Amino acid sequence: MKIAVIGGCGSVGSFISLLLSNIGIDVTVVDKRQLNCELKEISVINIGKSKLEVCGYDSLKNNYFDQIIFATKAYDVKNAIEHLKENNIDAETAISLQNGLGSAEELEKIYKNVAILIIYSGLQYLDKCKSIFHGGRSIIIGCKNNCMDKLNYWERVNNNFKIKIVENIEPYRWMKLAINSAINPLSVLIWNRNGKIIDKGEAFDLAINIVKETSYVAEKLNISLLEDPIKMLIDTIRETYNNCSSTLQDIYYGRKTELDYINLAIYNKAKEIGFEAKYNYFAYIAVNLISENIKKFDYPCKES
Amino acid sequence: MKIAVIGGCGSVGSFISLLLSNIGIDVTVVDKRQLNCELKEISVINIGKSKLEVCGYDSLKNNYFDQIIFATKAYDVKNAIEHLKENNIDAETAISLQNGLGSAEELEKIYKNVAILIIYSGLQYLDKCKSIFHGGRSIIIGCKNNCMDKLNYWERVNNNFKIKIVENIEPYRWMKLAINSAINPLSVLIWNRNGKIIDKGEAFDLAINIVKETSYVAEKLNISLLEDPIKMLIDTIRETYNNCSSTLQDIYYGRKTELDYINLAIYNKAKEIGFEAKYNYFAYIAVNLISENIKKFDYPCKES
Repeated sequence: MKIAVIGGCGSVGSFISLLLSNIGIDVTVVDKRQLNCELKEISVINIGKSKLEVCGYDSLKNNYFDQIIFATKAYDVKNAIEHLKENNIDAETAISLQNGLGSAEELEKIYKNVAILIIYSGLQYLDKCKSIFHGGRSIIIGCKNNCMDKLNYWERVNNNFKIKIVENIEPYRWMKLAINSAINPLSVLIWNRNGKIIDKGEAFDLAINIVKETSYVAEKLNISLLEDPIKMLIDTIRETYNNCSSTLQDIYYGRKTELDYINLAIYNKAKEIGFEAKYNYFAYIAVNLISENIKKFDYPCKES
Repeated sequence: MKIAVIGGCGSVGSFISLLLSNIGIDVTVVDKRQLNCELKEISVINIGKSKLEVCGYDSLKNNYFDQIIFATKAYDVKNAIEHLKENNIDAETAISLQNGLGSAEELEKIYKNVAILIIYSGLQYLDKCKSIFHGGRSIIIGCKNNCMDKLNYWERVNNNFKIKIVENIEPYRWMKLAINSAINPLSVLIWNRNGKIIDKGEAFDLAINIVKETSYVAEKLNISLLEDPIKMLIDTIRETYNNCSSTLQDIYYGRKTELDYINLAIYNKAKEIGFEAKYNYFAYIAVNLISENIKKFDYPCKES
């Protein structure tokens, strides 16, 4: 099995690349800043490290993969699709690995088979191709359409991960969305590691309100969440206690955040069904308003 | 007419003390940190300055005033009442000059005649007994009970102020509340002068949402706002463009904010009538969560 992982030197891409190469998958890491192909050490502390082939789009011209995993930021998916097209790089199945809504939908416009991969892992970027895993061992994968039989290899991922291969991914996607809609903006407002959201009563209270609101939107869209989202929120925060959310990391590193695909997407989706998702909306705007200033603070996520 | 102004060396108290002494009222400024009575220069740039008697509670033992104006922070009213009681200082009429809900209600427990004074002035503290006026010339005064005839002297206040003496103060109080519920938290989130709330589209959008929510609560309480609150918001921000809100100043100086009496009070009041004032609630918590960090930023309100 030949799999390309786009964005494979970021924390999420490195993580997935390592898990898959560990079970014998032929992984090619795609990095838009890379010129040629090069063997590089990919390392995720607490998971492991490995030398993997890292290539730029150019060096993969006219290549065909079994699967391409999009481990880019949500707002980079369109760009990735453009690069692939330009270089005639194609695949049987596309796997979306973004937080929030919208990215899988972009892939569906292009690929016949689209799957969604959901990871509940706390991952923190340290340096190029170097990250740290802060817990969270639940991974769920499922199809948007036509690809159930192509995901079986995920069963072999070990390292104590809890892998679920599901037929209908939407309830899992919305559960993750509910959790992210709370943790991501709140970690920025408190400018601290995930665990502090539970430690600060007011932050936790607000987190619960946001999760409830997102779950309510899911319910109105006839997506049934299977588990109690509040319990899931608490479990997730506990499992990734020492992690800093991707949004906090994005702001610190001066990158765009993905909240357009999380809180704003929920707000817009809710609007379609005549509901005003006020908590999500406020969370989205509040983070935007403070982000310029807050990134000047000390980074609360330094690793020794 | 003998009037005591409690908190008269703060920005709001200084402002009121000057306006009243200018029209010949015998003003005694009460400052809890003062030991004896002392003639001090009270100055509000753009309004004027004057030497006024500043006294501690002790030096006013067994005194009787026509009116006492409470120009303290909302959360200091109870303390002021205690000090007055201990020193047997009494008055015919008590005037509440706090933002938000709750303070006038405290005074009603003690005083037979209670009035509420609402000022739309942008005032910024510079130093002890020294402040700056940043525009906003609308002043409204009215009774909670039994004191209409005791407020006529306000007609004489000039300096181009627009003075309104009204029989029913509640609609004006809620209008001010609606404006404060938006400007105070948002000025903190953007950490800037009031005017920037209009300049930053996302902040303005959120401000409008909060004002609408507060107005909705007023409506449900059968308080009719008389004017369009959105127009009032825009007018107020324009008139106090260069002012920094009291909440921003409070956070910078390490003081408690009054948002318990503004956004949280609105949220609790709304709850009584079965409505969840989500925007007010989020605003309240968000400011609490970021206040510790945000006060480390540069002060955006320096005066040259």
